[in-house]
Amino acid sequence: MEVYLDNAATTRCSRRAIDLMEKVLLEDYGNPSSLHQMGMRAEQYIKEAKKKIAKTMKVEEKEIFFTSGGTESNNLAIIGTALANRRAGNHIITTAIEHASVAAPMEHLKELGFSVTYLKTDHNGMISRDELASAVCEETILASFIMINNEIGSVTPIAEAIEAIKEKNKNTLIHVDAIQAYGKYHIFPKRMGIDLLSASGHKIHAPKGIGFLYVKDKTKIKPLLYGGGQQRGLRSGTENVAGAAALGEAALECYENFDEKINHLYEIKEHFINGISKLDGAVVNGRSGREAAPHIVSVSLFGIRSEVMLHALEERGIYVSAGSACSSNKQSVSGTLRSIGLPQELLTSTIRFSFSADTTKEEIDYTLATVKQLLPFLRKFSRK
Amino acid sequence: MEVYLDNAATTRCSRRAIDLMEKVLLEDYGNPSSLHQMGMRAEQYIKEAKKKIAKTMKVEEKEIFFTSGGTESNNLAIIGTALANRRAGNHIITTAIEHASVAAPMEHLKELGFSVTYLKTDHNGMISRDELASAVCEETILASFIMINNEIGSVTPIAEAIEAIKEKNKNTLIHVDAIQAYGKYHIFPKRMGIDLLSASGHKIHAPKGIGFLYVKDKTKIKPLLYGGGQQRGLRSGTENVAGAAALGEAALECYENFDEKINHLYEIKEHFINGISKLDGAVVNGRSGREAAPHIVSVSLFGIRSEVMLHALEERGIYVSAGSACSSNKQSVSGTLRSIGLPQELLTSTIRFSFSADTTKEEIDYTLATVKQLLPFLRKFSRK
Repeated sequence: MEVYLDNAATTRCSRRAIDLMEKVLLEDYGNPSSLHQMGMRAEQYIKEAKKKIAKTMKVEEKEIFFTSGGTESNNLAIIGTALANRRAGNHIITTAIEHASVAAPMEHLKELGFSVTYLKTDHNGMISRDELASAVCEETILASFIMINNEIGSVTPIAEAIEAIKEKNKNTLIHVDAIQAYGKYHIFPKRMGIDLLSASGHKIHAPKGIGFLYVKDKTKIKPLLYGGGQQRGLRSGTENVAGAAALGEAALECYENFDEKINHLYEIKEHFINGISKLDGAVVNGRSGREAAPHIVSVSLFGIRSEVMLHALEERGIYVSAGSACSSNKQSVSGTLRSIGLPQELLTSTIRFSFSADTTKEEIDYTLATVKQLLPFLRKFSRK
Repeated sequence: MEVYLDNAATTRCSRRAIDLMEKVLLEDYGNPSSLHQMGMRAEQYIKEAKKKIAKTMKVEEKEIFFTSGGTESNNLAIIGTALANRRAGNHIITTAIEHASVAAPMEHLKELGFSVTYLKTDHNGMISRDELASAVCEETILASFIMINNEIGSVTPIAEAIEAIKEKNKNTLIHVDAIQAYGKYHIFPKRMGIDLLSASGHKIHAPKGIGFLYVKDKTKIKPLLYGGGQQRGLRSGTENVAGAAALGEAALECYENFDEKINHLYEIKEHFINGISKLDGAVVNGRSGREAAPHIVSVSLFGIRSEVMLHALEERGIYVSAGSACSSNKQSVSGTLRSIGLPQELLTSTIRFSFSADTTKEEIDYTLATVKQLLPFLRKFSRK
């Protein structure tokens, strides 16, 4: 049996997305900047894709910009607004549990003279409203929050955080890294007061190499790439038409039968947590149930190094992740797991199981049985 | 009859490239950063693709970095090296006939305090060796040249330019924008002394949204995107595996039966130029024959605005470009056409015809007959 439980790292591309890509690549392959019909048709795919995405968030088409993925979206949102709003202040707020594609641009901005406050979290990955409020000052131009943490599935209370910020500084721009959240939650930036929102295609069954950034109309932001002035100058470069079309289709698809899919995810998650919690020396990190994301479960397994369990599972056809898989094979210890105060001995004994709407109860049962069978065996042979 | 003669704007994706993409997206869809087999398999595609590309240029795999396309490659090469080598100097040399994805980053660097020399060209798009040599100084950290101009197909004598530079400053880094050249020329960066070279997938029958930058080992360069540290920290972000695999395959493909394809391109180009030159008030811009690129012909047609001819041709199924199609529908007048000294009345009466290896003699004949038929008709109804 093959069980892919690494859907927070990346997902299988959907058939609908691939079919659309193929049509674009073989038939409607024009350059959207070309003035003839082939160009117009290509441009139409971009518009359609923006429309599909905009509709899922109740925003305007012109507020959607295609990027090469989540990393570029986060970089553009953070570096682009910081540089464009420098005159208004040089202070930025974020959290200690951000993805590297937020944390690293922040460090880059620090080198450029910006001041960055990293909010700590409690053992569930929750920031404190009071700490946040006291961090906001007149100089705070930007606050960036991960909506769903990629390692433990914790849910940042975005609405509450925005409220706390706006009470003290109504000009602070709000960026939300929704890379794990988009497609799993209804997100309405206008209602919530979000100015910028990042999403990635390959987390929602679109291909890798495409993502989008929502930028609220009239937000001051500078481009990262300069050139032909595509996408109203914010993102030069010939648009990835096939990728954008696929992302639009995947976005549409993941919000179809939405409640059904989310309920299914919570059911299998609950089933998985129930099973794994009964195992000796297994601890589920963060909140469970509907208070956390439907597709991510982080489990620490006393006495077994993550890689050992990961490879033992893979030999049995089960694919999982040791911490976050988006960090280029690096063995560095996760900032999230540190921030939630995981004891030293568990930091390197944590496995992430992540599901998709296609994950079945049978796959979960097989996984639970396999972990149960492996635990005593691996503990016995584990060197401390 | 449908005749696509806008291959310098973008090309049809090859079947081999698409088949490989589909396999990646449906079967081998893992995240290259994941530690399990699915991740390893994905990583293998990246390695294979780098290998295929590296082989075409006789460079090392580790010197190939995937980007989201030509614009990102050019931006990364130029901004990345300028910022990394600022201590060595602040002067950069380029030409007046660069693509916007080179010219615009240069303008950005000027805002950051760099000094940029734009070399003028003669009526054939050629820079002067003397002017180049006298522009080089101790402060010159970077020189960037377009190898094949995208509008008129002129060939910059890269080897000669590099020689002139190195005589005066051996530390000056050399970047070549090979976006129109890669796949049409054998380019060997090591032999030629090129430090950085940009290429784009969708110009060589790979999809849009993928490109590469060759970076000679040990070249000092800063990233534009920060995050998970993929591609040895120079280009963070989950790799576009399907796109990279497709680009590798397309690169392989376009250097197969290479001489045959290039000879075919020159034959149809010559046939086209012979035909079009005979028409009343038609002037071919730049050099012809083997002294210019095999796939691009720029023609000025007295008394007829580019868009009028473009749309008249498109009604008859022929797709061409008015100037460069990579500039986001902008009606701004081309820097290249100005630099080659095109008279004012021809600046907006120029059409680019660009071929691929699949273009046939029959298509050229149909195009010539159509232009011939249209010319008197359009001139008659053209308002001056």
